[in-house]
Amino acid sequence: MRLADIAARVGGTVEGDGSVEITGVSSIEAPQPGTITFLADPKHAARLAGLAVGAVLLPIDGPAAPVPAIRVAHPHLAFVDVIEQFHPAVRPLPGVHATAVVAPTARLGARASIGPHAVVGDGVVLGDDCALHAGVVLYPGVRAGNGFTAYARVVVREDVRIGDRVTLHAGVVVGSDGFGYVPAPGGIRKIPQIGTVVIEDDVEVGANATIDRAALGITRIGRGTKIDNLVTVAHGCEVGAYCMLAAQTGLGGGTTLGTGVLFGGQVGAAGHLTVGAGVKVAAKSGISNDLDAGGTYGGIPAIEIGQWRRGMTALKRLGELLRRVRRLERKVGVTEDGE
Amino acid sequence: MRLADIAARVGGTVEGDGSVEITGVSSIEAPQPGTITFLADPKHAARLAGLAVGAVLLPIDGPAAPVPAIRVAHPHLAFVDVIEQFHPAVRPLPGVHATAVVAPTARLGARASIGPHAVVGDGVVLGDDCALHAGVVLYPGVRAGNGFTAYARVVVREDVRIGDRVTLHAGVVVGSDGFGYVPAPGGIRKIPQIGTVVIEDDVEVGANATIDRAALGITRIGRGTKIDNLVTVAHGCEVGAYCMLAAQTGLGGGTTLGTGVLFGGQVGAAGHLTVGAGVKVAAKSGISNDLDAGGTYGGIPAIEIGQWRRGMTALKRLGELLRRVRRLERKVGVTEDGE
Amino acid sequence: MRLADIAARVGGTVEGDGSVEITGVSSIEAPQPGTITFLADPKHAARLAGLAVGAVLLPIDGPAAPVPAIRVAHPHLAFVDVIEQFHPAVRPLPGVHATAVVAPTARLGARASIGPHAVVGDGVVLGDDCALHAGVVLYPGVRAGNGFTAYARVVVREDVRIGDRVTLHAGVVVGSDGFGYVPAPGGIRKIPQIGTVVIEDDVEVGANATIDRAALGITRIGRGTKIDNLVTVAHGCEVGAYCMLAAQTGLGGGTTLGTGVLFGGQVGAAGHLTVGAGVKVAAKSGISNDLDAGGTYGGIPAIEIGQWRRGMTALKRLGELLRRVRRLERKVGVTEDGE
Repeated sequence: MRLADIAARVGGTVEGDGSVEITGVSSIEAPQPGTITFLADPKHAARLAGLAVGAVLLPIDGPAAPVPAIRVAHPHLAFVDVIEQFHPAVRPLPGVHATAVVAPTARLGARASIGPHAVVGDGVVLGDDCALHAGVVLYPGVRAGNGFTAYARVVVREDVRIGDRVTLHAGVVVGSDGFGYVPAPGGIRKIPQIGTVVIEDDVEVGANATIDRAALGITRIGRGTKIDNLVTVAHGCEVGAYCMLAAQTGLGGGTTLGTGVLFGGQVGAAGHLTVGAGVKVAAKSGISNDLDAGGTYGGIPAIEIGQWRRGMTALKRLGELLRRVRRLERKVGVTEDGE
Repeated sequence: MRLADIAARVGGTVEGDGSVEITGVSSIEAPQPGTITFLADPKHAARLAGLAVGAVLLPIDGPAAPVPAIRVAHPHLAFVDVIEQFHPAVRPLPGVHATAVVAPTARLGARASIGPHAVVGDGVVLGDDCALHAGVVLYPGVRAGNGFTAYARVVVREDVRIGDRVTLHAGVVVGSDGFGYVPAPGGIRKIPQIGTVVIEDDVEVGANATIDRAALGITRIGRGTKIDNLVTVAHGCEVGAYCMLAAQTGLGGGTTLGTGVLFGGQVGAAGHLTVGAGVKVAAKSGISNDLDAGGTYGGIPAIEIGQWRRGMTALKRLGELLRRVRRLERKVGVTEDGE
Repeated sequence: MRLADIAARVGGTVEGDGSVEITGVSSIEAPQPGTITFLADPKHAARLAGLAVGAVLLPIDGPAAPVPAIRVAHPHLAFVDVIEQFHPAVRPLPGVHATAVVAPTARLGARASIGPHAVVGDGVVLGDDCALHAGVVLYPGVRAGNGFTAYARVVVREDVRIGDRVTLHAGVVVGSDGFGYVPAPGGIRKIPQIGTVVIEDDVEVGANATIDRAALGITRIGRGTKIDNLVTVAHGCEVGAYCMLAAQTGLGGGTTLGTGVLFGGQVGAAGHLTVGAGVKVAAKSGISNDLDAGGTYGGIPAIEIGQWRRGMTALKRLGELLRRVRRLERKVGVTEDGE
């Protein structure tokens, strides 16, 4: 692909020789000759020195390039465009594999691809261009929109509703019973989990993550939200639109997240609390109270992040502080236990 | 269902019109007209104001109701009874699916339901009313009692023993090799994991959780214990009866839990330690020592929870404390480094 | 097996009656009559008192034994040898199960064992003595060396490369898409994950763990590394040789671990950082910066472990410290807010 053609596709301007042939993409940390890479943040300009690639995508007002370049408003987004040109997504071929078990009452949309040993239950309804990879199990009554992709061994339990262009990675479980019990004479009594899960459009869920059905009502994952591997969302959560939950995060029952919430990895939320829109939470934090919209939080329990960082810094000086207090006591003539 | 009939079933007393027709159940946070809901804790009595439901289950000495009510000793347990009446559990139809692979030496109990692509190994013995959903794999020698339910894609490794009325949710793995190695010349040597797992009666295990077999001997999950999604129990643990382990908790090898232990989510136990009966541990805590029975603990490492909470509160004031010590030093005429 | 024969096999010296018949192995915590056990660390010598076993493996200069013994340089390694003699690993029988779906273009090595409902994609190449258990899915282009074992329901995505003698436990997912997105007008744009995963020789991965493919380039798991249950390794990580990552650990994108790194359970690494060779990190720690080789670290964020432990100890005394500062202030005549 000629550099000038790439520039035309991403709406950028060529700087240098537009006729250079680009053979693929690479990252700026591991640049490959003949490929195109990108630099989004001018503060990493030093990485351009001696860069041995065919071309580079750069911000319009960014640093000078040692190789032919494309100037563009959003180099990272443009780079995604270029990746997609070199590596177009491959959809599995349409058709139902001979070993798949599809209930006669299920309705598959156009160009459905149902892989080996997939199981599609009674009354399942799928939109167009759906792909169920090997071993996927859709329990009865599941409904999904267009462009649903379930990688190998995904399980979706009864009556879960899934929007358009949703992707579930291998091993994901959606609609499993919530963890709901009542202490009862002689043991612990299970509360039947008769609610369901709604996954809105453009959601992606990482490998082996789990999303439980509500006890009553709905566990909801909002439009455009991205969930990483091994995350668990408990019964009755309401996750807003365009949230990002990094790996191994866990939401307790009935947690509500506003729009655009960002959680680092291994975050926990205690349940029955509300995290406002646009909140960011540092990795490994534990949320035990409502968090106000727009803030950034950290720690166990999670507090305003500056306060948490200052506490952590001070913690390293605690030994020293103890010594200083002891010295003061000696000087002033009081003992540890009072005077 | 008439309210009076419901009252009779749950052993309660009707207050108001017992002839009102109840159409289903709903939660008090999302009440639906015509349904029945419940209120267990009188301190939430304010939620009753204007409640637009058909009826409500209330404690005997609880607040007055704005709608017909049933007075009963345990409203939450009674509500579970009512849910079960409206939504009786549906067991899959008995029979072995044509695509299942069942070893000739396996013995299935009465009314066994073996789903599509399930695999039942040599010498497996199942009690009555067992349901293996799609894609379940029981390795050779597994034994389970009556009423065993394995949701889609559960894996149970060789010779694991399972009691009556056990439920394993989708993606659970029981009996995988423990994480046991010895440093050896030129690498790391695996210790064969030749023990097994025993899961006692009435245990439930959440989606994608894992329970490893013992190196030697037995990993045991006690009667009535409930384990949430993505929990891992390492080799040689002894989990007591009626414990509840919330999501993403991890027990290191050889951990012993007494009866009735409650762990919040994302708790970790370091292994080879003992947690006494009735202990409660706050979410995200890390247990590195034995914990005395009956206590409540929190933090990393987990300490008595009041002490931990006071420490966390004080942590926020550390910056202030530093300033105050500095002021004292100035006043008294010592420097930070001594006089 | 006679004790003298065992001694010959492990290269040890019999102490006492070498003709005693040994019937199996047991642990020193749960000793069984007639079996052999081991004691590696002389500081546990008290456990030998009254030990009712057939024999014990002891260090050459270790304590005296109450039963026949074998003296050997590494009792634990010798015990592993003995376990393997009593419980030799059983490989599944060679052959392709009738329900497996193997692409005509796939190449299986000698003595391949392909279990029920396994799926082997186009162009897969496996070495000799490979065992794919029930329900394993290898996507097109996967290559594995000799002695590859995949337990039930393992999924390996497109083009992943696996070395010799690699074991993946049930439910493992390798090569799933990394969690890579760019904020975009009107939502969040996915970055195609076109890299792959390389797993080197002698790696073992625990149940339901996940290893993501790189965005570009390679996610690498070094030779001899052992990964426990429910661990997640994000896109672009470089895990060195002979590392051990305990359960539920998570590595953020682009994390680099040197050789011989040891992580306790539930550790998190923030990504795009480097952990030096031989580093040890305490369970539940959160790594947010590079860690120097050879050190031991703990805490959130992880710091030198002694410093962290002193901080945690001091934390318990913070309430007391506050009281002491208040007393000093009174004595000296300053108020909390200055004089």
